[in-house]
Amino acid sequence: MKHKLCIAYDGGGYSGWQIQPNAPSIQEELEKALSLLCKEQVRVIGSGRTDQGAHALAQVAHFTSGITPPLLALNGVLPPDIRVKTLEIVPDSFHAQYSATGKIYHYHIWLERIADPFIRRYRYHFPYPLSMELVEEASSLFVGRHDFKTFANVGSNVKSTTRHLKKIDVVPQEGGFRLEFEGEGFLYKMVRNIVGTLLEVATHKRPLEDILELFAKKDRRLAGTCAPAHALFLMQVFYGASSNEEMCAKSHSSASLAIS
Amino acid sequence: MKHKLCIAYDGGGYSGWQIQPNAPSIQEELEKALSLLCKEQVRVIGSGRTDQGAHALAQVAHFTSGITPPLLALNGVLPPDIRVKTLEIVPDSFHAQYSATGKIYHYHIWLERIADPFIRRYRYHFPYPLSMELVEEASSLFVGRHDFKTFANVGSNVKSTTRHLKKIDVVPQEGGFRLEFEGEGFLYKMVRNIVGTLLEVATHKRPLEDILELFAKKDRRLAGTCAPAHALFLMQVFYGASSNEEMCAKSHSSASLAIS
Repeated sequence: MKHKLCIAYDGGGYSGWQIQPNAPSIQEELEKALSLLCKEQVRVIGSGRTDQGAHALAQVAHFTSGITPPLLALNGVLPPDIRVKTLEIVPDSFHAQYSATGKIYHYHIWLERIADPFIRRYRYHFPYPLSMELVEEASSLFVGRHDFKTFANVGSNVKSTTRHLKKIDVVPQEGGFRLEFEGEGFLYKMVRNIVGTLLEVATHKRPLEDILELFAKKDRRLAGTCAPAHALFLMQVFYGASSNEEMCAKSHSSASLAIS
Repeated sequence: MKHKLCIAYDGGGYSGWQIQPNAPSIQEELEKALSLLCKEQVRVIGSGRTDQGAHALAQVAHFTSGITPPLLALNGVLPPDIRVKTLEIVPDSFHAQYSATGKIYHYHIWLERIADPFIRRYRYHFPYPLSMELVEEASSLFVGRHDFKTFANVGSNVKSTTRHLKKIDVVPQEGGFRLEFEGEGFLYKMVRNIVGTLLEVATHKRPLEDILELFAKKDRRLAGTCAPAHALFLMQVFYGASSNEEMCAKSHSSASLAIS
C-alpha cells in the first residue's frame, strides 16, 4: 500500500532532508521510525530536498508498506523536532516528487536592531537600512518564466534550469517582513540566492537593473550571497489544482507562537 | 551610576537566572559581558530568580558602574539567546528586587494531540481530556491573599509564605491556552506548582475542593506535580503604579512568531 505523509520539522539540528552518510537527516529519521513500526525496510521519497537547517511546515513524502502505522506511535518514535501531521493511504499512481505540481516557500527577515531570542532560529536578522520599495521592485523582476541558472547552485542534476516562478509576495510582519514564493518547482538554493541578491539591491549595494543582466549571464558566481537557511520554510506542496491534498498544508499554515 | 536593564532570554540552555558553580546562568552571562565592557567587576541584581529552563520577555535587573556600555556592544558580547532590550540610568534608590511591586508570569499549555516542533520548547504538551470549566474554577480558588506554603518548594528563605495573587486569567490561544498570573510576588516554583495542581483538578484526578484543603495543610508534598519550566515566561515586572517603567515589558508582550 502506498502511504502519503505530511511532515513538519524544525531543520535546525539536521543536515537537510536527504539521507547522507555520517549526518542526521529528516529522511533517515523517518525511514528508521517507519521501518521499526512496519517491521520491514521502508524507503521514504520526499517531494524534494530541503537545505541543511531549513524547515518545513508541510513537507510531503510517500512510502510503500503492507502496514499502516498509527500516527501517535509514529510520532512517539520520531524525535520531537519532526512531527508527522497526517498519514493516509493513496493510489499507487501517487508520487511525492513526480506528482507535485507546485510549492510555496516562505523566507522570514527580521529588521529590528536587536534580535529576538525566541525567533532567532527562524528569522534572518538583517538590521540594515533597506528600501521596501526596492524589495517590491526587485521581487517583481524575478517573477515569471526564466532560466534561473544564475540563481541555482550546482548540485542539482536537472535537465533544464528554466522555472516558472508564479509570484513573490512581500508580506509585512512583526519585526520585519516575509517573502512568499510560489512556483511550479525550485532549483537547488534558488530561493536563498534570490533573497541574497534581492537584499543587495534593497540596500543599494547593487542596481536594480543588475537582476536582468544576471538572468542573461547564467553564471551563479555573479549573483548575490546565498541568504541563510534557518529563515526558510517549505510551506506547502501542491498536487493538482482540483485535489484536496493541500489540506495538510492548509491546516498548519497558521501555526504560530504567540507569547503575549 | 545605577543602571537598569530590561532583558529577554530563552532559558532553554541555562540552569536559571541565578549564578551557580559549574552551570551556565543568565546572571553570570550578564556579569561577564558587563564586566568586559565596563572594565571592572560588575555585579548584576535581578528582580528575582527564574527557574532552570524558564524564559523571560522582560526580566529587570540593575548594576552599578561608572561606564554606560552601548546597547549594541552589550548584545554583541552576550550569547544570542540573551538580549538586553533597554538600558537606562536610574536613581540610586532603585533596586531591581526590593523596588519591585508586582510581576506577571504566563504559562503556556498545548492541548493538541500532536506537538508542534516549532513551539515545543515554549509550551507544555498536555494532550489529555480536560475540562476548561474546571480550569477556570480551580484558577479562581487560587486568587487572593493566601498562605501559599503548600505551593512553594523549599529553597526560598523567605520570612512569610503569604502572597497576594491578584489574578489568574485563562486565555485561549492556538493549540490550547495560557494562564496569566499577576501578583505582588511569587514563591519558589509557586506558579508551576499551582499549574500542576490545577491540571490534576481539570483532568478529574483530584476534586476541586482539594485546593482549599491543600491551602490549610501547608505541606508541599500534598500538592500536584510541578509543571515543567519550559512553558513558563516572566512577562513583566512592575515598579510602582504610576511609573512608566513598564514600558520595556510592554514593548515585548506582543513578541510572536507567526509562520504563515
